[in-house]
Amino acid sequence: MFSSEPTSSQLVLDLLQAELGEVVSADPALLQSVRTDKSGWVAPGAPLAVVLARTTEHVQSAMRIASRFRIPVVPRGAGTGLAGGGVGTDGALVISTELMNEILEVNPADELAVVQAGVINQHLSDVVAPHGLVFSPDPASKAISTIGGNIATNAGGLLCAKYGVTREAVLGLVVVLPDGTLLRTGRRSVKGVTGYDLTALFTGSEGTLGVIVEATVRLRPIPSGDIVTLGAFFPDVRAGAAAAAAITAALIRPAVMELMDHASLVAIDAYSGTRLSEGGGAYLLVQTDARGAAEEASAISEILTRLGADVRLARDSAEGEALLAVRRNFHPALASVGDVLIEDICVPRSRLAAMFDAIDEISRRHGIAIPTVAHAGDGNLHPNFVLPPRSSQPATASSEPNEQWVPASVWAAADELFVAAMELGGTLTGEHGVGVLKKRWLENELGPQSVELQRGIKSVFDPQSIMNPGAVF
Amino acid sequence: MFSSEPTSSQLVLDLLQAELGEVVSADPALLQSVRTDKSGWVAPGAPLAVVLARTTEHVQSAMRIASRFRIPVVPRGAGTGLAGGGVGTDGALVISTELMNEILEVNPADELAVVQAGVINQHLSDVVAPHGLVFSPDPASKAISTIGGNIATNAGGLLCAKYGVTREAVLGLVVVLPDGTLLRTGRRSVKGVTGYDLTALFTGSEGTLGVIVEATVRLRPIPSGDIVTLGAFFPDVRAGAAAAAAITAALIRPAVMELMDHASLVAIDAYSGTRLSEGGGAYLLVQTDARGAAEEASAISEILTRLGADVRLARDSAEGEALLAVRRNFHPALASVGDVLIEDICVPRSRLAAMFDAIDEISRRHGIAIPTVAHAGDGNLHPNFVLPPRSSQPATASSEPNEQWVPASVWAAADELFVAAMELGGTLTGEHGVGVLKKRWLENELGPQSVELQRGIKSVFDPQSIMNPGAVF
Repeated sequence: MFSSEPTSSQLVLDLLQAELGEVVSADPALLQSVRTDKSGWVAPGAPLAVVLARTTEHVQSAMRIASRFRIPVVPRGAGTGLAGGGVGTDGALVISTELMNEILEVNPADELAVVQAGVINQHLSDVVAPHGLVFSPDPASKAISTIGGNIATNAGGLLCAKYGVTREAVLGLVVVLPDGTLLRTGRRSVKGVTGYDLTALFTGSEGTLGVIVEATVRLRPIPSGDIVTLGAFFPDVRAGAAAAAAITAALIRPAVMELMDHASLVAIDAYSGTRLSEGGGAYLLVQTDARGAAEEASAISEILTRLGADVRLARDSAEGEALLAVRRNFHPALASVGDVLIEDICVPRSRLAAMFDAIDEISRRHGIAIPTVAHAGDGNLHPNFVLPPRSSQPATASSEPNEQWVPASVWAAADELFVAAMELGGTLTGEHGVGVLKKRWLENELGPQSVELQRGIKSVFDPQSIMNPGAVF
Repeated sequence: MFSSEPTSSQLVLDLLQAELGEVVSADPALLQSVRTDKSGWVAPGAPLAVVLARTTEHVQSAMRIASRFRIPVVPRGAGTGLAGGGVGTDGALVISTELMNEILEVNPADELAVVQAGVINQHLSDVVAPHGLVFSPDPASKAISTIGGNIATNAGGLLCAKYGVTREAVLGLVVVLPDGTLLRTGRRSVKGVTGYDLTALFTGSEGTLGVIVEATVRLRPIPSGDIVTLGAFFPDVRAGAAAAAAITAALIRPAVMELMDHASLVAIDAYSGTRLSEGGGAYLLVQTDARGAAEEASAISEILTRLGADVRLARDSAEGEALLAVRRNFHPALASVGDVLIEDICVPRSRLAAMFDAIDEISRRHGIAIPTVAHAGDGNLHPNFVLPPRSSQPATASSEPNEQWVPASVWAAADELFVAAMELGGTLTGEHGVGVLKKRWLENELGPQSVELQRGIKSVFDPQSIMNPGAVF
């Protein structure tokens, strides 16, 4: 019998390798790569090993050993997170579900699919497209992020105002609990109210309760009819935010409604050679779809024109795609000049203009540029901080990387953003998650009592507190 | 100091009355009325008292006293539940939120409302209609059920396939916990992923975790455009179920798609003087709405005609309403001849025909008629058992009512229905809840491990297990 006391890492590694063979790796380059995600955060220290699981049984074996020796476990998908929620912390066992990438079932009659956690979001949509179906959740990372990761963070995206967030697309889960047992949640029917909604509890739980290995997800019909795209320039972002609110107030729900401020347009111009920033102080990009798309676009165009915007309707889908490419170039544009801290606040839709005011005020007072884009249809803003690139000082396993890459002055400004969002009735994270980066603000939003109850829920599933102990709580 | 030991009921009642005055009632007629709900179940014994709360503070005071003396508490709305989830069990303190019926805020710009738990579902829709908005959840009881009760059961209805269930319409809650403290969950923004989704956890929790006193709910634009209604007769219900599946498979999502079997049509005819049962062996009622309604209805009509149905398109909305009235007359028709046990299974949509086969087989083998209607768009069936009326033997506080009103032979048939639904990948309750009536099947569906974890979650919120102890678990 082995003791349940913490013991030497080497023993645990030997056991893992004896049981899982090549599925376990302690390759220094791999250990190094899982210390970070797309947030830019690099965890201090080095993880113990990475389990590159190909089957549910691999995950179960790894969890049994981790549980026996109380080794911290970090579940990880493709590593595209933006809050440090899936990074290999010091001494942790990283369980990657990235190679569990099989689509187990596509059922067009029931408009559902059963997938392993590592299936790439876009890949599922590609596979079901011939049936006229789509997997709706559309984080910006959908070409590279896994469905397991999307569920663990309850990922959002551009289409949420009309088509919902990830939670609304998940019917059931298979989860490996810390002790290695399997838990099935939910069902294959679209309705069902037997017991508590554990599926929703795991959705957005950021790897703190167990490892999601399989999901039954809803598919939706691809909207029929045309897609119509239009862009509109405004004198300033406040006017753009008011216009977006006017569209919502007119009871129109576009598929896409993205607002970019002037600093964003300047960054895009520098990157793409466009001259958008000369067109106005802000740019609102709207796309309508399904039956009535043209009618809706025309109503939107009227509203925007009445509000003084310079509106340009795309003549065809190619021009529409070109307009969307403007938005898609935003993050590459910022990333080309520095390391980017992408923030993710969300406010009630009517407070979008007020939030832009607050960002402007904070930006001026701190003397820090905060280029911001917003999913204007649901009040979700991404203010960005561009930091000097670290590429000249690559982090290696031997040299301690600069995990404190975000200077205190930037965190001070970010802190004020979070407070302002909460004061407006919003949240410090609309779709990216708490991860490690926003832990210190968790209680500000939830209050001590809710945090205590949530810790209590965590301890029901994870009594030894080995699941992603560095994140969220 | 009072002891935390159980103590005499009279002392607790005195304390409640000292603190809450006329808000507390032990009126025998009231105590009698809260022993049952629309399921027909009557709880054995008598509750201690009813708190007719008008404020959150009333609920908090009552919970503090109940908690101190470990008195079981049953939260209750309008008493329209169909699973005995809100009935006053023996010795329990019933906390009714029915009189907490104030709409605290209507915010058209953010498409949300803040309501007390006792606001009637339809009343909210009536109040927000002038803004072009609607509260989407539409249980059949919406004219008489409270939003708090809708949330506690995650109520469904006719429009779910297109417009979602209650969970999708709830942004945040205020809950009184067993110790009397207030918990706020969720937020006013449409997105947000800070911490676990406690809002979803409380939605459908059937009063087992706390008392929901306030909710921030989403409103949606009333669908623009026409409403088109059509009805179609089929030789048998299997053909009707296959036709409903064909509509879904054609990627059309009607607002309403209701299927009635022949026994249902016979019952409706006897009640309404109609001659529907002569039209065919089953009737499918379909309603399309929003932009493209006519186009969708025409595509549906073609599909149904091709499948051999006798399709009749309503000429106008009045005729459409008349067709819908057929469906609405179903339960009154059954209730006019006996007491009705309404079941509520849900299967994947493609298994609807298979489930009707199973119902037919069970009905024949047991020699019991099981008239059944289905929300065909989401695979949710309501098989009904009509029992001899008890009205000739009214239950009173003094004479023990017949709580075992459903004979064992009927439960045996119902048991087989549940098993068949689960074998088809479905659930034993699509929208009514577990309550007291389906407790004994809970573990069959969820498995012992899930039930144990759910009990663990309950104990985090309700360590003394005083919340609705007779229900669900």
